[in-house]
Amino acid sequence: MLLYDYRAAPNPRRVRMFLAEKGVTIPTEQINLIKGQHRTAEYMARDPFIRVPLLELDNGEYLGESVAICRYIEELHPAPPLFGRTAQERAFVEMWSRRAEFELLPAVAGAFRHGTEIGKALEPNQIPALAEASKTRALQVMKIFDAVLGDRRFVAGPDFSIADITLLCSVDFGANTGAIQTPDDLQHLKRWHGEVSARPSAKA
Amino acid sequence: MLLYDYRAAPNPRRVRMFLAEKGVTIPTEQINLIKGQHRTAEYMARDPFIRVPLLELDNGEYLGESVAICRYIEELHPAPPLFGRTAQERAFVEMWSRRAEFELLPAVAGAFRHGTEIGKALEPNQIPALAEASKTRALQVMKIFDAVLGDRRFVAGPDFSIADITLLCSVDFGANTGAIQTPDDLQHLKRWHGEVSARPSAKA
Repeated sequence: MLLYDYRAAPNPRRVRMFLAEKGVTIPTEQINLIKGQHRTAEYMARDPFIRVPLLELDNGEYLGESVAICRYIEELHPAPPLFGRTAQERAFVEMWSRRAEFELLPAVAGAFRHGTEIGKALEPNQIPALAEASKTRALQVMKIFDAVLGDRRFVAGPDFSIADITLLCSVDFGANTGAIQTPDDLQHLKRWHGEVSARPSAKA
Repeated sequence: MLLYDYRAAPNPRRVRMFLAEKGVTIPTEQINLIKGQHRTAEYMARDPFIRVPLLELDNGEYLGESVAICRYIEELHPAPPLFGRTAQERAFVEMWSRRAEFELLPAVAGAFRHGTEIGKALEPNQIPALAEASKTRALQVMKIFDAVLGDRRFVAGPDFSIADITLLCSVDFGANTGAIQTPDDLQHLKRWHGEVSARPSAKA
């Protein structure tokens, strides 16, 4: 297998962190999105949506979508379980992971693409009103996660899961690009962030 | 169990269609989003993201996110399998379902929320440039799905899956709200649309 990766983007980091938690190593090839290395006929033939991460399987097929890749790895390497242990746990891990990726990540991405200088490389026609709306939404969603993390250690319950990976990569993407910082008064989110960031996989 | 539902929205339809394919019936309660029936303290206590669908479990917990609900139903009622049969099938069903929901549905929703009169009820500060960009993107993505459906009967392969449900609900949401129609020259997408729309579950 070969993983098409880009170290500066949030989605490939989700897969790298997932692999590190599993103790699985897959060779990677860097595709620099800012330099447009995905906008080639060769890459488009692999993935018409020209996204990273992308996993080349041994049979020559290409598997895209971070969570599809992670779920496939979970099937090949079930321990430790990162999608939950029971039907109900799996349902709530899926719910919280999706809330991070659908509610927070697009808001952070909107603030980055439409509101930062480097975002212009990906979004030549920036819409300032969208940057503002995205930032407001990201802060709302962070508050909800802060309340959730006041009740429990990890995003979906007492165990670390893919939902923590999704939330961490979303929060860090906002901070690292200068698009949005976690406000100081969100203490539970900050407590959780410190704890999850200290895991060796966070450096993957 | 009780399903909080709204007949006019695309995401609850995904769950209703999934349940119909499984032959499972769950009582529903309608939450009219256009009338703001989700913006009550009572509903917010159930789901801080105030979304439908939302599944109230028998233990009193609330499970949100269409796909989390569908996956939970799949675990309780495995036949017929709608998430794939093998590890690799499950990976590609996940990939294609996510491509419909992340690449097409947000583009259609952007065209609806920012570009139609009724969308104003949900998006008081409409951004016309975003409506245009969303429509352009939706057409690009429809073309990719058209090419995919030239090669096979269903979105993720020879078997009907949740990926077909996600794509159908996304395409129909655009058509039904007047936000975006499938262009006539996308013949494979139209062939597939006719076939999938003829399933009894499409009326759920």
